[in-house]
Amino acid sequence: MSAYKTVRGMRDFLPEEAKIMRFIEEKARKTAKLYGYKEIITPVVESYELVAAKAGEEVRLRMYAFEDLGGRKVALRPEFTASVARVVATKLRNEPKPLRLFCVGSLYRFDEPQKGRFREFWQSNFELMGSKEPEADAEVLLLTGTLMRSAGLRNYTFKVGHVGVLRSILSLEGLGEETQNRIMQLMDKKQHEEALTIVKENEASEKCLKTLHRLVGLRGSNIADILDEMEKLVKDYESASEAVKNLKEILKLAKGTEKGLNITVDAGFARGLEYYTGMIFEVYVPELDIALAGGGRYDKLVELFGGEPTPAVGVAHGIDRIMLAMQEQKTGLPVEEEKRVMVIPVNENLNNEALKISEILRNEGILVEMEVMRRKVTKALEDADRRSISHVVIVGERELIEGSVVLRDMTKKEQSTVKIEGLANKIRSGI
Amino acid sequence: MSAYKTVRGMRDFLPEEAKIMRFIEEKARKTAKLYGYKEIITPVVESYELVAAKAGEEVRLRMYAFEDLGGRKVALRPEFTASVARVVATKLRNEPKPLRLFCVGSLYRFDEPQKGRFREFWQSNFELMGSKEPEADAEVLLLTGTLMRSAGLRNYTFKVGHVGVLRSILSLEGLGEETQNRIMQLMDKKQHEEALTIVKENEASEKCLKTLHRLVGLRGSNIADILDEMEKLVKDYESASEAVKNLKEILKLAKGTEKGLNITVDAGFARGLEYYTGMIFEVYVPELDIALAGGGRYDKLVELFGGEPTPAVGVAHGIDRIMLAMQEQKTGLPVEEEKRVMVIPVNENLNNEALKISEILRNEGILVEMEVMRRKVTKALEDADRRSISHVVIVGERELIEGSVVLRDMTKKEQSTVKIEGLANKIRSGI
Repeated sequence: MSAYKTVRGMRDFLPEEAKIMRFIEEKARKTAKLYGYKEIITPVVESYELVAAKAGEEVRLRMYAFEDLGGRKVALRPEFTASVARVVATKLRNEPKPLRLFCVGSLYRFDEPQKGRFREFWQSNFELMGSKEPEADAEVLLLTGTLMRSAGLRNYTFKVGHVGVLRSILSLEGLGEETQNRIMQLMDKKQHEEALTIVKENEASEKCLKTLHRLVGLRGSNIADILDEMEKLVKDYESASEAVKNLKEILKLAKGTEKGLNITVDAGFARGLEYYTGMIFEVYVPELDIALAGGGRYDKLVELFGGEPTPAVGVAHGIDRIMLAMQEQKTGLPVEEEKRVMVIPVNENLNNEALKISEILRNEGILVEMEVMRRKVTKALEDADRRSISHVVIVGERELIEGSVVLRDMTKKEQSTVKIEGLANKIRSGI
Repeated sequence: MSAYKTVRGMRDFLPEEAKIMRFIEEKARKTAKLYGYKEIITPVVESYELVAAKAGEEVRLRMYAFEDLGGRKVALRPEFTASVARVVATKLRNEPKPLRLFCVGSLYRFDEPQKGRFREFWQSNFELMGSKEPEADAEVLLLTGTLMRSAGLRNYTFKVGHVGVLRSILSLEGLGEETQNRIMQLMDKKQHEEALTIVKENEASEKCLKTLHRLVGLRGSNIADILDEMEKLVKDYESASEAVKNLKEILKLAKGTEKGLNITVDAGFARGLEYYTGMIFEVYVPELDIALAGGGRYDKLVELFGGEPTPAVGVAHGIDRIMLAMQEQKTGLPVEEEKRVMVIPVNENLNNEALKISEILRNEGILVEMEVMRRKVTKALEDADRRSISHVVIVGERELIEGSVVLRDMTKKEQSTVKIEGLANKIRSGI
């Protein structure tokens, strides 16, 4: 028996949780509609080469990779962006830009299971392809805020940075991409000392080390000050200065709307995925130390996959993590006040009639559970009570002769004989 | 570049198809609600042992099975029922019966790709646990009819059989379960001669062979006649007679409702999965030779996974196959008459205002695509036209001074200056 359980790191969502998951998915789909993102569905199983290309060492080593029965090296997708970039580079390569795409589904990483971190996890994913402008970056931040708000979350904060700042400095100091990737991985894990050691080993200038050291400690929600400070620090690195300017423009747009976002700028912020080229961000709530969402700009990925050069920015929202945040913040789902009906035949000879009446009610859009256990009416009524059924329809011979049934309101504990014809209306309006 | 494509047997659903997939999923979820089935979400990655237990040789050999990084033998689920039975045997073992469970998601089998058959496919799945009565079987048939109807399909037919008939005869003739499984596998593939050869080799009686031979050829939509004939054929095999009686009761219930189902009985019908113990069925449309749905009764599976003995009946609906059937039958989705708005700033200094107005409209539930390409207004209008945008909001300095924007109706090709305050209402009501 013990063999028959979920595999370590995998989990089941029982009805109450599944309801929250689908609620968030629906909010994400609604957000996609509001912002003009069209949904696509890509497979869970992708070629290893594709998903490994720019995943970053951390993710690459923890992928569910294996050979399929045809001998192809495949992997369960660890994130969505590579798949969406693949679609844009191939099947949608001739679509007019901007191209806004949405997807939602499960992803897989062999991480050590812990609170909020499972090996199968769920994301909604938004990609805006074709625009290099800060308006695009701001849009992705804003739609993320809309989703968080519509899930009922409070006190969520955007942590924002720009990989262009750090990478520009490292490039100007002559450090290659591989080395930069290693440094960014360490930064992502907040191992700043180790990261700076690598910079040192690669013969970067004293000034560079000093600049990086100060950038790494620079963060705060007084974003105008932080951005000014960043600007000063990097003023001798031209492309890094451009990056700071870009970040300023993005944040001005994102802060300027009515429901302005709560933003912290972190000059030393990095993310594990290697494909980012510009603004990056994550979303947090105070109750959890894992990110609820993360994203950023990646201008080279579509090209890498054989498409036209396509600037792009995107975000992934952790649906199961948003669920956890909702639970932590005690954010309930909207209460459903739906009528739920149980149809009970008084004996098995009336099963046909009971089933027929059930179907008539369902055709009218009423939620019906039919008694299928052949229990006595009293037993079935007890069960209906336990299940919070609002109305019971009792199908008996005597009433049927007159085309009627007994309708019992379980809340009021009242019952009356009702014509089958008017039954649906009677239930809807209350008796 | 050629490396970056979908893995053989996998596929992408582009926006038009993804919309149909989600439409069917939503209809399935609606059906679940109407019939009282609660949704659960189970993982794609299950223990190999679990999903292999009763999958049947055919499926077992074509599973995506591999070792995870922790050395566990796992498999991508090839079907839902084992997972649901696992949940009922463990986490939901104390839930009152009947227990109605619904799930929806992707499944994996390494089949040869062909029309309507991919290696990743999508199903909605309904399981009714705890009732051994024919009402339960009938309910599963009826809700399947409801789903097919609500997807807009026409001319779908239920092919129905009962594994109890064939298995009872084979048991009474002394054939073991393993041998029965092999025979049923061959029957499933319509290799009836090969199946009968095995029966012969296992020293079944002449009468048995004759009975099986006649059963195998017996099918038709005149179901009363077919059932009578079956009854006559198996009258000397007591438990097979019980099975025919059971099938009669089920079909009487399923045919008795207002929107009676279109049913064909097939006495020699078998399905590949080994766990079935009673009524089995599949759904077909004339345009396709693959089943759109399939299911049946499986009274031993929950017990096998360590749960209480729990009679059960269920069905899986192939969402991607229903999509294919809709396409074949030219069943369109309901037309959405939604207003879609594009907001265009006349120059980049107005980006902040344009973004703010976009957010105001979205907060009112209006679908807004913001111009993020910094194109000239005329260029952006051309693009709006191509995308079937219904209204364009042009944000210009002159109008802004008065708290207004230009609203252009793209269908009527008319425009006027409108206060931002009343913009959402104006768009909703038409100008």
